[in-house]
Amino acid sequence: MRETQTIFIGSGDPGLIERAQTLSPTLQIISSRQLKENPEALSTIDAAYGWLGKDQVAQATGLRWLQLASAGVNGLITPEIKARDLIITNARGIHAEPITEHMFGMLLMITRRLGEAWDRHKIGKWNGEGLGDRVLLLAGKTLGILGVGAIGGQSAKVGKAFDMHVVGLRRTGEPHEYVDRMYTLDQTHEFLAASDIIMNILPKTEKTMGFLGPKEFDAMKPGAILINTGRGSTVDTGAMIAALQSGKLGAALLDVTDPEPLPEGHPLWTAPNVFITPHYSGAHPEYDERADKIFLENLRRYLAGEPLINVVDKEEGY
Amino acid sequence: MRETQTIFIGSGDPGLIERAQTLSPTLQIISSRQLKENPEALSTIDAAYGWLGKDQVAQATGLRWLQLASAGVNGLITPEIKARDLIITNARGIHAEPITEHMFGMLLMITRRLGEAWDRHKIGKWNGEGLGDRVLLLAGKTLGILGVGAIGGQSAKVGKAFDMHVVGLRRTGEPHEYVDRMYTLDQTHEFLAASDIIMNILPKTEKTMGFLGPKEFDAMKPGAILINTGRGSTVDTGAMIAALQSGKLGAALLDVTDPEPLPEGHPLWTAPNVFITPHYSGAHPEYDERADKIFLENLRRYLAGEPLINVVDKEEGY
Repeated sequence: MRETQTIFIGSGDPGLIERAQTLSPTLQIISSRQLKENPEALSTIDAAYGWLGKDQVAQATGLRWLQLASAGVNGLITPEIKARDLIITNARGIHAEPITEHMFGMLLMITRRLGEAWDRHKIGKWNGEGLGDRVLLLAGKTLGILGVGAIGGQSAKVGKAFDMHVVGLRRTGEPHEYVDRMYTLDQTHEFLAASDIIMNILPKTEKTMGFLGPKEFDAMKPGAILINTGRGSTVDTGAMIAALQSGKLGAALLDVTDPEPLPEGHPLWTAPNVFITPHYSGAHPEYDERADKIFLENLRRYLAGEPLINVVDKEEGY
Repeated sequence: MRETQTIFIGSGDPGLIERAQTLSPTLQIISSRQLKENPEALSTIDAAYGWLGKDQVAQATGLRWLQLASAGVNGLITPEIKARDLIITNARGIHAEPITEHMFGMLLMITRRLGEAWDRHKIGKWNGEGLGDRVLLLAGKTLGILGVGAIGGQSAKVGKAFDMHVVGLRRTGEPHEYVDRMYTLDQTHEFLAASDIIMNILPKTEKTMGFLGPKEFDAMKPGAILINTGRGSTVDTGAMIAALQSGKLGAALLDVTDPEPLPEGHPLWTAPNVFITPHYSGAHPEYDERADKIFLENLRRYLAGEPLINVVDKEEGY
């Protein structure tokens, strides 16, 4: 490591830059404003916190560490970036609680008929017809977690507390304390057939594009509920609409779509039993604070030459 | 116990009457239809399953055991009934899962801004403005369970899984495995002051009428969220509306109201940050089946002279 390190911090928070500076008085910090005024400074940076596009990363020839403020890597990892001696770290973990809360919120809104009750409240009339006799109970149902990482593990824990049976699908097949049965990729159809409710938290990688296609919707239980907070492109939108229209899929609760943002007039808006929230399941009132905390911990480790946390596997893409 | 027992079974399900009969061939069963044709048969019954009014219980002078299909006793226990050698059992326990699911559904709908997202979905426009930046996170918040019985215990368990801090209030003060701190009745204001979210599951008894009045709303944290699935009369409706209007109370999520049903034009319908569902939080697709199971178990015990389960404490009223 050279004696003087130069880091780009793409945050508008002067307090963060101050806190970073206190970790090392010799640290050279380049702010967003400075980079805007002098884009060539990219070639001088050793590290960066915040989002850099592919072209910017290509220009930052000295970049050795990039800390993202997001969990998703979203196609940043080109063959060139894979080949480079560049460590990418992300903000995974801070999404586990908000996304789990969002998924159970969407799910319970449908199973407890709360959307209909919300509409009726506005009319100001006490009318329980078709509500209580149409609820579904989570207890006793099978929750299938598609992609058991930090978010999936948190959701599995909550599912168990709701007295659900929890199954999971994970590339490594490694067991998890809150997952009653873990399936591997070659057992995807068995996993889908076992699940009453599927929480899809797959990241966007080359392998997960269109992961849920026509054959996968065929493999699901009739009336299954699909929740997607991973990436829209992991689901074949046309196949999902067909499954909703045939009734094979009971409901689709989506925080992500493909295309995204979903354009006006797209048939997914009006497909039966769809509820879309505009990609904010990871939103969290203390998001920046917690992402900054991961960055500062990694900056400390970086300056001390210690191994970083939240390192992205560039081969797997997450 | 006399050799021949007569029981009234107020269920329209012939299968249930058949199952009851198999427990004892000498059991005399009176159906709803038979009782309607011959109301005087009340005086001959030893036991009953289903709802009997106060007057009917008074007429059923030989009644020794009444199994309710509900959890609430709703003013059935008059001084006369208290004095009688009559055991009342209820269906408590089967409400724990549906009511817990309902309460967390209502709560997450508000904290994740899902009601607004639901309204926007209908317009078919992708618009995240004012949603993600206004969410609240359950994780780290304090959940206060007002009345820790079967329902409260289940809710405490789910709250812990969501990484909440859980406090409870219980007459006996007895600890609970999922409650981090249990308060007693004389500490009601401390309990309220500690809670970000209050789940009120108090039963309707003489002691709980208007339990949450002006002083209790004053004692709450500013912006607290109150959920009520117990009985409407445990909350002073006027005091609650005032607390909502002043902003002291952040939201009221109500499955029960006082008066109930809430009449058209009542100011509670339009008070700020209120969401009312028309008393169906206990609804459950297999409700009758599970209530019948408790009844059949108690019938077996009754015929065998064994102690019954789910016995109501006539002094406490639940």
